Amino acid sequence: MGFACIDHHRQIRRGFPEVIYCPGKSTEQIIQIFESLAEKGNNVLATRAEPHIFEAIAKTKKFPDVYYEELARAIVFEQKKLPYSKSILPIVTAGTSDLPVAAEAKVTAEIMGQRTELICDVGVAGLHRILGHLEKLRNANVIIVVAGMEGALASVLGGMVSCPVIAVPTSVGYGASFGGLSALLTMLNSCASGVTVVNIDNGFSAAVTATLINKKVESGK
Amino acid sequence: MGFACIDHHRQIRRGFPEVIYCPGKSTEQIIQIFESLAEKGNNVLATRAEPHIFEAIAKTKKFPDVYYEELARAIVFEQKKLPYSKSILPIVTAGTSDLPVAAEAKVTAEIMGQRTELICDVGVAGLHRILGHLEKLRNANVIIVVAGMEGALASVLGGMVSCPVIAVPTSVGYGASFGGLSALLTMLNSCASGVTVVNIDNGFSAAVTATLINKKVESGK
Amino acid sequence: MGFACIDHHRQIRRGFPEVIYCPGKSTEQIIQIFESLAEKGNNVLATRAEPHIFEAIAKTKKFPDVYYEELARAIVFEQKKLPYSKSILPIVTAGTSDLPVAAEAKVTAEIMGQRTELICDVGVAGLHRILGHLEKLRNANVIIVVAGMEGALASVLGGMVSCPVIAVPTSVGYGASFGGLSALLTMLNSCASGVTVVNIDNGFSAAVTATLINKKVESGK
Amino acid sequence: MGFACIDHHRQIRRGFPEVIYCPGKSTEQIIQIFESLAEKGNNVLATRAEPHIFEAIAKTKKFPDVYYEELARAIVFEQKKLPYSKSILPIVTAGTSDLPVAAEAKVTAEIMGQRTELICDVGVAGLHRILGHLEKLRNANVIIVVAGMEGALASVLGGMVSCPVIAVPTSVGYGASFGGLSALLTMLNSCASGVTVVNIDNGFSAAVTATLINKKVESGK
Amino acid sequence: MGFACIDHHRQIRRGFPEVIYCPGKSTEQIIQIFESLAEKGNNVLATRAEPHIFEAIAKTKKFPDVYYEELARAIVFEQKKLPYSKSILPIVTAGTSDLPVAAEAKVTAEIMGQRTELICDVGVAGLHRILGHLEKLRNANVIIVVAGMEGALASVLGGMVSCPVIAVPTSVGYGASFGGLSALLTMLNSCASGVTVVNIDNGFSAAVTATLINKKVESGK
Amino acid sequence: MGFACIDHHRQIRRGFPEVIYCPGKSTEQIIQIFESLAEKGNNVLATRAEPHIFEAIAKTKKFPDVYYEELARAIVFEQKKLPYSKSILPIVTAGTSDLPVAAEAKVTAEIMGQRTELICDVGVAGLHRILGHLEKLRNANVIIVVAGMEGALASVLGGMVSCPVIAVPTSVGYGASFGGLSALLTMLNSCASGVTVVNIDNGFSAAVTATLINKKVESGK
Amino acid sequence: MGFACIDHHRQIRRGFPEVIYCPGKSTEQIIQIFESLAEKGNNVLATRAEPHIFEAIAKTKKFPDVYYEELARAIVFEQKKLPYSKSILPIVTAGTSDLPVAAEAKVTAEIMGQRTELICDVGVAGLHRILGHLEKLRNANVIIVVAGMEGALASVLGGMVSCPVIAVPTSVGYGASFGGLSALLTMLNSCASGVTVVNIDNGFSAAVTATLINKKVESGK
Amino acid sequence: MGFACIDHHRQIRRGFPEVIYCPGKSTEQIIQIFESLAEKGNNVLATRAEPHIFEAIAKTKKFPDVYYEELARAIVFEQKKLPYSKSILPIVTAGTSDLPVAAEAKVTAEIMGQRTELICDVGVAGLHRILGHLEKLRNANVIIVVAGMEGALASVLGGMVSCPVIAVPTSVGYGASFGGLSALLTMLNSCASGVTVVNIDNGFSAAVTATLINKKVESGK
Repeated sequence: MGFACIDHHRQIRRGFPEVIYCPGKSTEQIIQIFESLAEKGNNVLATRAEPHIFEAIAKTKKFPDVYYEELARAIVFEQKKLPYSKSILPIVTAGTSDLPVAAEAKVTAEIMGQRTELICDVGVAGLHRILGHLEKLRNANVIIVVAGMEGALASVLGGMVSCPVIAVPTSVGYGASFGGLSALLTMLNSCASGVTVVNIDNGFSAAVTATLINKKVESGK
Repeated sequence: MGFACIDHHRQIRRGFPEVIYCPGKSTEQIIQIFESLAEKGNNVLATRAEPHIFEAIAKTKKFPDVYYEELARAIVFEQKKLPYSKSILPIVTAGTSDLPVAAEAKVTAEIMGQRTELICDVGVAGLHRILGHLEKLRNANVIIVVAGMEGALASVLGGMVSCPVIAVPTSVGYGASFGGLSALLTMLNSCASGVTVVNIDNGFSAAVTATLINKKVESGK
Repeated sequence: MGFACIDHHRQIRRGFPEVIYCPGKSTEQIIQIFESLAEKGNNVLATRAEPHIFEAIAKTKKFPDVYYEELARAIVFEQKKLPYSKSILPIVTAGTSDLPVAAEAKVTAEIMGQRTELICDVGVAGLHRILGHLEKLRNANVIIVVAGMEGALASVLGGMVSCPVIAVPTSVGYGASFGGLSALLTMLNSCASGVTVVNIDNGFSAAVTATLINKKVESGK
Repeated sequence: MGFACIDHHRQIRRGFPEVIYCPGKSTEQIIQIFESLAEKGNNVLATRAEPHIFEAIAKTKKFPDVYYEELARAIVFEQKKLPYSKSILPIVTAGTSDLPVAAEAKVTAEIMGQRTELICDVGVAGLHRILGHLEKLRNANVIIVVAGMEGALASVLGGMVSCPVIAVPTSVGYGASFGGLSALLTMLNSCASGVTVVNIDNGFSAAVTATLINKKVESGK
Repeated sequence: MGFACIDHHRQIRRGFPEVIYCPGKSTEQIIQIFESLAEKGNNVLATRAEPHIFEAIAKTKKFPDVYYEELARAIVFEQKKLPYSKSILPIVTAGTSDLPVAAEAKVTAEIMGQRTELICDVGVAGLHRILGHLEKLRNANVIIVVAGMEGALASVLGGMVSCPVIAVPTSVGYGASFGGLSALLTMLNSCASGVTVVNIDNGFSAAVTATLINKKVESGK
Repeated sequence: MGFACIDHHRQIRRGFPEVIYCPGKSTEQIIQIFESLAEKGNNVLATRAEPHIFEAIAKTKKFPDVYYEELARAIVFEQKKLPYSKSILPIVTAGTSDLPVAAEAKVTAEIMGQRTELICDVGVAGLHRILGHLEKLRNANVIIVVAGMEGALASVLGGMVSCPVIAVPTSVGYGASFGGLSALLTMLNSCASGVTVVNIDNGFSAAVTATLINKKVESGK
Repeated sequence: MGFACIDHHRQIRRGFPEVIYCPGKSTEQIIQIFESLAEKGNNVLATRAEPHIFEAIAKTKKFPDVYYEELARAIVFEQKKLPYSKSILPIVTAGTSDLPVAAEAKVTAEIMGQRTELICDVGVAGLHRILGHLEKLRNANVIIVVAGMEGALASVLGGMVSCPVIAVPTSVGYGASFGGLSALLTMLNSCASGVTVVNIDNGFSAAVTATLINKKVESGK
Repeated sequence: MGFACIDHHRQIRRGFPEVIYCPGKSTEQIIQIFESLAEKGNNVLATRAEPHIFEAIAKTKKFPDVYYEELARAIVFEQKKLPYSKSILPIVTAGTSDLPVAAEAKVTAEIMGQRTELICDVGVAGLHRILGHLEKLRNANVIIVVAGMEGALASVLGGMVSCPVIAVPTSVGYGASFGGLSALLTMLNSCASGVTVVNIDNGFSAAVTATLINKKVESGK
């Protein structure tokens, strides 16, 4: 393929799916890359995929049980099921509108063997909502927090737990949210220790990092 | 004075001090404006005043009992004491470094007759610190919140009370705080209802607005 | 509901409607949240709602007399009429194009019991237009000013009245208005005391704050 | 001179002084350019000049009656007095802190023969201040408005007169004024027709343009 | 009309059309404002008007000879023809893509009685193109320059003429043009004297200012 | 043509095609310019052309063998084939999604006689992919690097070769890529010597500069 | 203390020092907070401390063996030595100028018991420099990468290891580095999985997160 | 040295000096790196060096004939003189204030064997100044253009020559130049082909690239 350089060195990261970021690629390119990755026997994940891309992939009939996570806009082809993690990875959202980004994190973490739990709509304007989940959160090895608008949930949660918090700013909001810039800056300036940040709407990267951490912990290193 | 146009219509806002914003004005100009305002018998407040400006004003010996609030960088000349407000105006800061801005708010509110209480260093990274003050805060007619860095305190507090919250972002922080921009955006994007925002570091304006609200309430309109 | 955490503590803010911010939520999610909120007997308001969402809600036939404020893009379900406020809340716009934001403020304030008056198209390029409304404005406990482009109306009006002014920058404009940034900065830098600011196009939040203030005043605290 | 290319074609703009923008040039360079320009018999103006540069120029004793406008930070060497304009050029400032920029405009316009009048501290937070000068302003061929912070004065004034208004945003302000960006955007977004804008703090350029206009008018073209 | 405040004081600016800025207004609102303005006998101009708005206005049959300038997206209703100006107003564009903005300037200036000449596609990457028009440009009282991308034409032209240059940055470009910001900053930082700037794509305002200047000149003040 | 000023001085740059940048021009304008350029016998290139523009041009039947490079969105009319360059110009992309910009560079370089080689999808997250191409890259006189998102490939490659590297940031990415700003800044701040940068997505300009360099080298100056 | 609210709940994060962020606090305030924290027997760390603050603290003679890490600008008071971690935490810098930020990370991690190794000046413009350290890096549980200017090192390194990488952008650079914004955006847009980001120059926060991860791993959860 | 990783692979770029970027490094670090680089017999260049650093280096007496280029703020240690280039590299500045950046380019190019010519103060506001140098410029293999403020010189010059132009934006300017951003954007958006851009004030990088090009050309590849 002239348009893509398939990476055969990823075995160094055993347990990772092969991943295709769809925007800017033609449907034909995506199918070809998908096939090339799948024929090695690996799990394949295509992110930010419009429904018509999934339909085209399904129509090839080459990928049994491939499915589409609509909310996450992800195409999932799981050829071999990984063993489940012992601990649960909480994925927390500030609002209902942050769900698509959380869903991308969820599907990514799960294809890498993580057990996840979605805790939804517990933003800081009503603190009692998050307080009810505190014990569960304190049992985690790492937490993903997804929040748009003012993005304050990562700081508040970071102050209540003693594990790393991976903060995902979202583009949810309007006006002075400037496409997620507000939540991004809030999270970068967090006064709570242990909070690190990924790109706006990047549920995928948060899930990969959380999985890396959890695997290290569960393998006792 | 060719350089300043003294406003003789302010009586419409009875109880307000005359105010001089010092930056960009020469010490001589400030003294002349100060004299012109004081000779009407009004209280005078000079904000953002470097110590040498206060010394020059004090040296004129024309303003008995004029004093300098060092933390707030304010010069205060209170010729007639206003009656105290019945309710207390809480001024809450996220961190110790936000104190100078809170102090400007405090001195401004007090010269306008407000009783104030400073609640300091109760940022969201340690929520229990603010929870201890909750009853007091719920008694207020209006609250001023002063916070830099990620500025999340306004949202959290806004979700816990049922009075208006005036949020003052501060330039406390570094890097991606971009001189207070981060806290400003956080506050503007607050999910909590009842939060309005003033300019970065503008403790003065927050105090004026809070006083306007409190006076309206206490006069029963 | 996995996707939303309904808040049962809002009774602390008696008189508030339950509110749904629609963007980023699916129609199905909105209907479920709507039902959940309505069954407690409260008034419900859905903001930034596209017409097809209203149609879907109306089609359920579960919400008698629910209606759609087209200009405000708001769905209103008023189960119990609140008593009217004594004073009138003026909502002032600089131009005709600012009307949708003003309409959101209006519908929000009214469902919370405020009597409102819309004063439209009185921007600073023709000062005589605002001067004719001055007496009415001076009677208010609080004023909402809605302006895009250069957003100067809040400063001008703030200099003429002695009550708090809540300034709503709008995204009306083009080029160097940068989606409302210009009006936002103008309002934050206002030289007039008593002006506080909410997010760009956030008529809802301005109305909530104005109502909070007015209720405090009319209840004599 | 290797470091400067003196322009001998400026006669096309008769009546203009030769001008040196000082920042970034060494004192020696400035003196050499100054001499080179002066020896043609022209008037010379050096802008943004620190006092020590003036002292160095004065010490050469080559430029009789050269003087320093402290407020404007300008060095003026007027070898031949131009005839005065018939009409008066008003230079209006919103606040006292805007004076240095207005002073640069004033000294520039005057060395080009304009009669000027400074109208100072008439910002929009107290409209009655500008209203008192209205007749004078309506007699002008062109007006310069100098304002920092929210910069609303240009729009308000532009709506009251029928001549062009040249708006000079200043860097006066703090926080969300972002070094004059706020006033700049306000002025660019002005709803009032006839307002054009120059760079932040650029009193010089405003004065040159105003003079160009006034000369065209007074020469009947 | 509740949504618009028609301005009956514009007679102070005799010769001006009544103007409607269309974006953000409903077609119905535009028609009502149009009627209200037209019935005083004045010329009416509607800017940034989509074709369907013109069709709706034409269909009313109330405005004989109303027409649509497609390139400028302007609706023109000229009830009384103004006398032509003696001098010609040059409107210069850097590229063909800048034409819509130049066309808005042209139609605006002409309805106010200006004779205009469009000089198109003479950007600085091929200087000889502008040099061929130099004599014509030097005869003007004022020049409008319209340029996107790097926007350098205003500086180059400003250095070659001795009349004021009104620079209109356009949103033509991509990438680091940031919607016209690049051209805007270039023009604001122009080293050539006599250049003032209006908002991005604001051909209308440039034309109004140019007309104000030209009228002053031709009336001998 | 009133809307375009055809440049007949380009012979100074022998070997260049005539180029039309399509956005903002009507199809009719593009066809007229295309004809005007083609009738001199030169090669013609139209960039950023939507398919329907090509169809309109093809339908004129005036340009034999004109074709459309779909990926590059370029219309190519090659009337005379230039001799091929001796050396090969490598065009390297970080990801598959950067291909359209690389394709624009490729078609541009080829119509100017360059032999090119596309090396695709060799971004820094898998360094071994670029290392396999190193020898080929070290033989080049100049290299074009096309990268979006974090844009780090230009720095890495610049550190491995001793010829100039022309870096093209692309708008590929989301969130904090801010439309290519991230890659642009990365490339401008490159620690590797010999890296220069063009506008975001500007494959055309990179190809022209690379061709200029290669021609100089191959002509031995 | 009115100005600080000492947090007695931190025991939930056993092994953490008490930390004072110095900027914006007076020397007196810092000493009082320092004393209050130290008297509980905990380790105390003061970051961003100017030398004169350390001198004032040392002069109190209350804190035996307190010392100043000059490069990190940190005051360290280690009352009880924590057991060393088994694994080594690599702290990697792109250039020598990034050392102060790396030093802050180092002193922070060490007071929390981490064994660290500084790998300095291995930026991407000379890839062989980082390649020599690869084995060591692959043994780590987590890596801190500190880089200014184009900040590409985090992406390159992230592609070579299978543990989480915490990226610290620094303000090292000039011009279009915009105070660290360039490196920050590069890191947020990293194509390499497993990279998360903290605030510009925030070595402290990176060290805390890295320690949290390492402790989780070494405790086998 | 723990703080620097000396690069022994630079022989691949024969003829390059070893270079130290001084900001952020201590004087001691700079001296140690300087020694380490010099003892290999190579030429050494230290850029952005304050005078006191040169004095410290000179005082070591280890580097005969080391000297300080004051304008460029560069320390030059030329142990072996390279043969001169045949062609001349023109370095063109828009204004006198751009000289320090041009001087950095000059000293860098010269230590790499380039013959240079400085053409100073020929900005676009007086086009005749650059026209006089045109023949000389057309003989060059590559040209460096250094300009601040509006930065238009690169576009104008790029339209007049047929060799690559390397554009260096400078931070010369004020207000809306935003520290060189204006000139940077202008240059990135240049309509003239063959213009590429380096970081603001980066005379060093422009000189390296220009030398790379010229060497390629003069070696006939």
